[in-house]
Amino acid sequence: MSLKLYGYWRSSAAYRLRIALHLKNITYEHVGVNIAPNASAQLTDAFKAINPQMRVPVLETPEGRLTQSMAILEWLEETYPEPSILPIGAFGRAQCRAFADIVACDIHPLNNLSVLSALKQDFGADKEAVARWYGDWILRGFEALEVMAARRDGAFLFGETPGMAEICLIPQVYNARRFDVSLEAFPNLVAVDEACQLLEPFRKAAPESQPDAG
Amino acid sequence: MSLKLYGYWRSSAAYRLRIALHLKNITYEHVGVNIAPNASAQLTDAFKAINPQMRVPVLETPEGRLTQSMAILEWLEETYPEPSILPIGAFGRAQCRAFADIVACDIHPLNNLSVLSALKQDFGADKEAVARWYGDWILRGFEALEVMAARRDGAFLFGETPGMAEICLIPQVYNARRFDVSLEAFPNLVAVDEACQLLEPFRKAAPESQPDAG
Repeated sequence: MSLKLYGYWRSSAAYRLRIALHLKNITYEHVGVNIAPNASAQLTDAFKAINPQMRVPVLETPEGRLTQSMAILEWLEETYPEPSILPIGAFGRAQCRAFADIVACDIHPLNNLSVLSALKQDFGADKEAVARWYGDWILRGFEALEVMAARRDGAFLFGETPGMAEICLIPQVYNARRFDVSLEAFPNLVAVDEACQLLEPFRKAAPESQPDAG
Repeated sequence: MSLKLYGYWRSSAAYRLRIALHLKNITYEHVGVNIAPNASAQLTDAFKAINPQMRVPVLETPEGRLTQSMAILEWLEETYPEPSILPIGAFGRAQCRAFADIVACDIHPLNNLSVLSALKQDFGADKEAVARWYGDWILRGFEALEVMAARRDGAFLFGETPGMAEICLIPQVYNARRFDVSLEAFPNLVAVDEACQLLEPFRKAAPESQPDAG
């Protein structure tokens, strides 16, 4: 099956999909879409034809194009079940998905490029105010995630291998570091990040390993 | 199986779960948690013990408590597969989940009570500015959803019965109306909402039908 990933090296949601693709050993073609504010390639008519929502990532599959990283993760899991990125049993899967969703629904949407732009435009937020906003939502979410991470048995969050929870956590930890958010209060999250960084799929998926990294 | 739903009549995420529970004919006990700013029952120590993230909804199951509405929807689907709230086939399911995720990841997180409070506190946003912010994120998301909804074949979005897409859309349409956001540009979304409102599960799940409605 031939897959094409429209992404951007620093996009958190594209980073999630790269980790999942590498964890599952799936070959894909990388298409860089420069969403940096001085380029905004996602706002062109050409890209709007690819995704009317004008966002990355988009996964082109033989059946058509898919959007929304969390929906694409589920598609990858259903289409390429091995190795699985979800625990066995509905309750464990729900806990793993809940961890992932705290990142995907409660942290990341508040730190999206379009939101930071709106803060500047609508409320005249300066660089410092934007950084405070950014860090604050990470801290609130990480507090809950740290409690959940402290309950893990081994190196990873929900089982003996990394899955959907780590797929969402690691890009968010990357963002936190990029914006100088202190991770001192989150030793368990940092430990999970370290365990993941030792693995080849996470190294291959890292922003700096991408062909469009600037 | 005995289920208990900690929710709030006007919580969009709790509303999603109520629709799913009624669509699947699952009996549950309702526990109202008054998250209105003058009550803030979710911030008490008693509730923090139930959910460290201090948010509704929480679903109490015989195996333990689950949080995050989107993860709980997947748990309900896995635990009570009939009637299904997802289409047949991985690609259709991914499209349905993507529609739902535009609401759950791109619209609703920006309009959360905690975000609106932060806008007031951090940027001194007045009532009018908050309403503009609220409406703007709905409009941006609904633009993409309207394109997707226009492609449907029948009354519902992805098949002959409502599922995860409608479960997320209908509470968001309710919020839009509540905050006087014009739906004029979204005839397809309005039509889907009308088709859903004719069904008993949606009527039973409506905010005004809840015992804690004020």
